[in-house]
Amino acid sequence: MIAESDMDPSVQTNVTRLSLQSPPRTAPDFLAAEEPLEIRVRGRSIAVTMRTPGHDEELASGFLLTEGILRRRADIIEIAHCATDPGAALTGNILNVFLAPDVPLDLEKLTRHVFSASSCGLCGKASIDSVFMQFPPLEARVEIETKVLFELPKRLRASQSAFEATGGLHGAALFNRAGELLIAREDIGRHNAVDKVIGHAFLNEITAADILVVSGRASFEIMQKALAARVGAVVAVSAPSSLAVEFAREANQSLYGFVRDKTANHYN
Amino acid sequence: MIAESDMDPSVQTNVTRLSLQSPPRTAPDFLAAEEPLEIRVRGRSIAVTMRTPGHDEELASGFLLTEGILRRRADIIEIAHCATDPGAALTGNILNVFLAPDVPLDLEKLTRHVFSASSCGLCGKASIDSVFMQFPPLEARVEIETKVLFELPKRLRASQSAFEATGGLHGAALFNRAGELLIAREDIGRHNAVDKVIGHAFLNEITAADILVVSGRASFEIMQKALAARVGAVVAVSAPSSLAVEFAREANQSLYGFVRDKTANHYN
Repeated sequence: MIAESDMDPSVQTNVTRLSLQSPPRTAPDFLAAEEPLEIRVRGRSIAVTMRTPGHDEELASGFLLTEGILRRRADIIEIAHCATDPGAALTGNILNVFLAPDVPLDLEKLTRHVFSASSCGLCGKASIDSVFMQFPPLEARVEIETKVLFELPKRLRASQSAFEATGGLHGAALFNRAGELLIAREDIGRHNAVDKVIGHAFLNEITAADILVVSGRASFEIMQKALAARVGAVVAVSAPSSLAVEFAREANQSLYGFVRDKTANHYN
Repeated sequence: MIAESDMDPSVQTNVTRLSLQSPPRTAPDFLAAEEPLEIRVRGRSIAVTMRTPGHDEELASGFLLTEGILRRRADIIEIAHCATDPGAALTGNILNVFLAPDVPLDLEKLTRHVFSASSCGLCGKASIDSVFMQFPPLEARVEIETKVLFELPKRLRASQSAFEATGGLHGAALFNRAGELLIAREDIGRHNAVDKVIGHAFLNEITAADILVVSGRASFEIMQKALAARVGAVVAVSAPSSLAVEFAREANQSLYGFVRDKTANHYN
């Protein structure tokens, strides 16, 4: 049986270690925690995501911001976990977000941004244009100084304590233009890690967040979330997708990929 | 501008290579292709996923199988891309799946399997139980011989031609119990890569698929897809999540993680 802790991003279990050289042996190990989170707004369940417990308010805020529901800090009155049966094995997997009464809740906005009509029918360009209807391109690009750029993945990695233990968590972090770490979060889901840092900046009204760093790849959805948060530069430790590059170029975002100790790619 | 090819999993673009040692230089590079795919059943749009174009019929079949819509090969009459405007920049991003008339289309099944009532309210256990209502646990576990196990990631990697070019694609493969590769696919989305190999096996009525190998991590959803396809063992090159391990133990699936050249973890 797995011992679970509500807020601990890692969970202990026993594993059998196999090796070509030696007989199997059982040993304790740590796993990245994964649990469902249901986000409710005005009594309606609007999303369920598999996430690593912890910083759920940030996750919900970041999700609602990047989906276009939230615009400013005052849009949120309160965020609270559901009161649950005290005898339940786990609590804290249902989160109520209380919006100000004047915030329109357009559930259409929660559909993926890929349905808009376009000359191509359904294509990457149409998906990008659809996002721009909600989140316009940035006015000026953020360029990162080369010597700052190469420091960013190291600083993210240094903050990833649970990754060290489990090897199973994605990291995301926001930095200011000078390369100072503002916030870093980890999650089993890479979109969740991004939502958490964006939600943190939103809840705390941090406006200097110019750079998003992700421990893995950059896809369309990562770029869309960065744009929604008005973050001007995205740095991926690994590869960007074709649509991420196209998105960045059209949105005036700087996109860097394969950022390693001494080399990196700049895509625009 | 990015040159796009309908079926090519990689897309060429120009990048600026940055280095601490030398001045920036522009060079051509390959990106993992990412485009939206809309899956339609009986005229209704049931899913849009960002995927790497190619093997879309397999992706749709695997998706519908793992969502519980498809049960047997005869459930599908035809799968065809939408006829689109010949002047459109891209075709092939909308796929119609024609089901046999007697196949029930329960759109409720397409919601994530995490809503079921349970003593814990909403938790990992409830999510697992909810999947089991649709896909019961396996009767017997598949154990992989140690010397076979250590060969599997190498065989998957050897099949990943586009990863070599782009560094941006997830791989998934099905093997028989003897470790022979049955099918391997790549995709920008790791769930898509799994859907493609499962869909391939379904469409071609391959019944010997005992082992699923994924190039990355194993999460709840990967285990659920393997169970839906009645695949008895899952091998992840990287870390499993806590819920993946719990799922495997309850579903009678063998789960191996961190499978490298000479060492691996067995989680049950």
